[in-house]
Amino acid sequence: MTATVGRRLAAEFTGTGLLVAVVVGSGIAATSLTTDAALRLLVNSLVTAMGLAVLILTFAPAGGAHFNPLVTAADWVLGRRTHHRYSLGEAAAVICAQVAGAIGGAALADAMFGQAVLSPSRTGRTGPPLLLSEVVATAGLLLVIVTLSRTGRTKHAPWAVGAWIGAAYWFTASTSFANPAVTIGRTLTTTYAGIAPGSAPAFIAAQAVGATFGTLLAVTIHPVTSAPAPADTPAQLAG
Amino acid sequence: MTATVGRRLAAEFTGTGLLVAVVVGSGIAATSLTTDAALRLLVNSLVTAMGLAVLILTFAPAGGAHFNPLVTAADWVLGRRTHHRYSLGEAAAVICAQVAGAIGGAALADAMFGQAVLSPSRTGRTGPPLLLSEVVATAGLLLVIVTLSRTGRTKHAPWAVGAWIGAAYWFTASTSFANPAVTIGRTLTTTYAGIAPGSAPAFIAAQAVGATFGTLLAVTIHPVTSAPAPADTPAQLAG
Amino acid sequence: MTATVGRRLAAEFTGTGLLVAVVVGSGIAATSLTTDAALRLLVNSLVTAMGLAVLILTFAPAGGAHFNPLVTAADWVLGRRTHHRYSLGEAAAVICAQVAGAIGGAALADAMFGQAVLSPSRTGRTGPPLLLSEVVATAGLLLVIVTLSRTGRTKHAPWAVGAWIGAAYWFTASTSFANPAVTIGRTLTTTYAGIAPGSAPAFIAAQAVGATFGTLLAVTIHPVTSAPAPADTPAQLAG
Amino acid sequence: MTATVGRRLAAEFTGTGLLVAVVVGSGIAATSLTTDAALRLLVNSLVTAMGLAVLILTFAPAGGAHFNPLVTAADWVLGRRTHHRYSLGEAAAVICAQVAGAIGGAALADAMFGQAVLSPSRTGRTGPPLLLSEVVATAGLLLVIVTLSRTGRTKHAPWAVGAWIGAAYWFTASTSFANPAVTIGRTLTTTYAGIAPGSAPAFIAAQAVGATFGTLLAVTIHPVTSAPAPADTPAQLAG
Repeated sequence: MTATVGRRLAAEFTGTGLLVAVVVGSGIAATSLTTDAALRLLVNSLVTAMGLAVLILTFAPAGGAHFNPLVTAADWVLGRRTHHRYSLGEAAAVICAQVAGAIGGAALADAMFGQAVLSPSRTGRTGPPLLLSEVVATAGLLLVIVTLSRTGRTKHAPWAVGAWIGAAYWFTASTSFANPAVTIGRTLTTTYAGIAPGSAPAFIAAQAVGATFGTLLAVTIHPVTSAPAPADTPAQLAG
Repeated sequence: MTATVGRRLAAEFTGTGLLVAVVVGSGIAATSLTTDAALRLLVNSLVTAMGLAVLILTFAPAGGAHFNPLVTAADWVLGRRTHHRYSLGEAAAVICAQVAGAIGGAALADAMFGQAVLSPSRTGRTGPPLLLSEVVATAGLLLVIVTLSRTGRTKHAPWAVGAWIGAAYWFTASTSFANPAVTIGRTLTTTYAGIAPGSAPAFIAAQAVGATFGTLLAVTIHPVTSAPAPADTPAQLAG
Repeated sequence: MTATVGRRLAAEFTGTGLLVAVVVGSGIAATSLTTDAALRLLVNSLVTAMGLAVLILTFAPAGGAHFNPLVTAADWVLGRRTHHRYSLGEAAAVICAQVAGAIGGAALADAMFGQAVLSPSRTGRTGPPLLLSEVVATAGLLLVIVTLSRTGRTKHAPWAVGAWIGAAYWFTASTSFANPAVTIGRTLTTTYAGIAPGSAPAFIAAQAVGATFGTLLAVTIHPVTSAPAPADTPAQLAG
Repeated sequence: MTATVGRRLAAEFTGTGLLVAVVVGSGIAATSLTTDAALRLLVNSLVTAMGLAVLILTFAPAGGAHFNPLVTAADWVLGRRTHHRYSLGEAAAVICAQVAGAIGGAALADAMFGQAVLSPSRTGRTGPPLLLSEVVATAGLLLVIVTLSRTGRTKHAPWAVGAWIGAAYWFTASTSFANPAVTIGRTLTTTYAGIAPGSAPAFIAAQAVGATFGTLLAVTIHPVTSAPAPADTPAQLAG
């Protein structure tokens, strides 16, 4: 493992961990402070949007700030024939770092609020509307990321991705998990943002379907890759 | 139909569809979570602002990210004598894609929340204050877009247009539809964001009046077109 | 009157008018939708921040997007010995356009909501804490604007000024009018955002004191003017 | 003391003062307008995020806009072997200006709202969850700032730092003070944002631990300093 790969794994572990801490922690705080369900979700969504944007800005130079196995998978597939290519082993290691970070982030949030740490959630999230929602939210996420990459505008990714997820909390029925690593992390908290382990596989499958659809749509609309992004912008997805 | 036109139609269909899904879906979620009418509209307006900005960022390179027949009309009229010109047939096809996307987006949002799909709204929205509001909201929208285009600053369009619509939800009495395609899409949901089909024609007429006024004002204040926008920014309106 | 001056006056009239319409209109809507006083002010402040940012972006190229007699006054004084200089008559005309626009904007908002048009407010706003608040809010506003101008970074002015005013709604006791033209416009509405005509002179005097202080502080910290802003950014204040 | 150092001290004093005024003042206003605890904290967090971003934008050119002794300490340590280096005495003077400004800002906010000025807070904030929260919030803050500096992207610092702190109000249990100078200032208000003097030392110690950890993590992930930031961006941290 080279130093560069090591730094990338550290960035993906830390970034995904802080992202889950933001999601879970703000859910705990909002739940404890109000009984209004819309105000709780408004806090959760705005805080996630702000936190996600900052984390992408911070960790992008160290290797893309994916924080999401489906983004890494799309990046690996689309980058195979470019100079951005990296090995399947590195992609797998990145995904492992994301999942480990997500679990650590859930534990960190619960510890900060004095909650039980690493207890499985009992919040069932099931049914066709929620799964359709995950398809739509994840399709849109990949559509945004792949399009920005293929048009050489990844400098817009931090705030655009934050805004997309912030909006998708509300316009989908599932509050837009859209991320298998984050979904796994959220199975291990008994608080507001949790999801029962039994509900996770269908969520992750729906996310994979959506990611495939969104990536294909982006590639169809933008068949030719633009020039690479300027050096100072994050290379979130290779083209 | 060339590949480029096909991609533009796909972008306008998908973008307008997701925009209406954002508007309708967030309205359903907000209504189900709180009884406070201001909190509902705050959610609806902030989510629309974020979602609209991301969608413009994402779809602009494929053909302008108009999502709005009045923006396309202004673009077509103002671009006739420039190298941005395109045929009346292409403009009409773009508008058809926008309307079809808007209807699809309303259906998608209702499906995600398990609501009746493609049922006509029974929410009447009538009266001079609401029509004056649509004139003002749409005039301002075109003033913003045409001015940014004519001063070579369309790179600001995504967040500026999102912020304008987000603000206009509140400072107008109509919650600022400001878009005939979106208005048609919103006739086909029985939820919070719906508008009765009978109320739509007057809304659309008021929007057309406002768009004309806003475009003329922008052209009057900026009679000479600036240099074209840099290559990496969306050409939202030809000059 | 040259065409350029005419366009500047049109921009200042329209921009200030829409700004007051945003402030007054969102206040009416928020008041009608909730009884929670904090939610009302949150709506009013966020909508003003978004609206103000868009309006500055839109109208800056036509002559600075001041919308505020104290900004125009500071610009005129600081620009006298530079190539940005313009006549005292032009400055006076700009201020008249701002005041006329503000009055028109209040009337427009009241008309959009079916309220009495151009009726004087009966909302007294008096006392040392409120006047100190106006000093602080206006000092900060001029500190931000003059500093961005003197450091060649006026491209940041739209969102920075919007954020400053949005924040100042809350951290001052007066909800931060910080603008004599807007203050005059707000004397002519009986709604949430109004101010009784008898309270206006002291507000305006406090604003003038704050503007003087903020401008002097900015000039002290940045005694040398930086290079002019790039051509595509608004020249909000001459150096 | 050279003129440049004097201007830097004036900027740090004023900027930190206005930051504390924003935090304390918005807390007073929110508390007076609603009984909903989540709405109070939402106002406090959003207003702080907006205000902090503007203040960094405004004061960065005069010397970095640290407003935080731990940021100054990290900057001094990391900058020792670069051309950004400055004396230990200057760093100490900057920190004194920050603390003095923070105290002044608390007094200013209380004066604007007619509250007792410079009275010690009686709000105890203690316990392991809160101290862990301060470690996490401050580690993340330094991670963001040092990373942006070492990757030559300090132009993103204003909005990124604002968003980080705005999010950390919610995802930590301590509402994220993350700043020793601000913590000291907040001991001197009896209002919502106050902290009892007896709780401050442990908070500050936790912040120092977090800052050390965050700085080391950023330096580990980005061992080589990038090219200096472009001239028009704030040099928030030397490399």
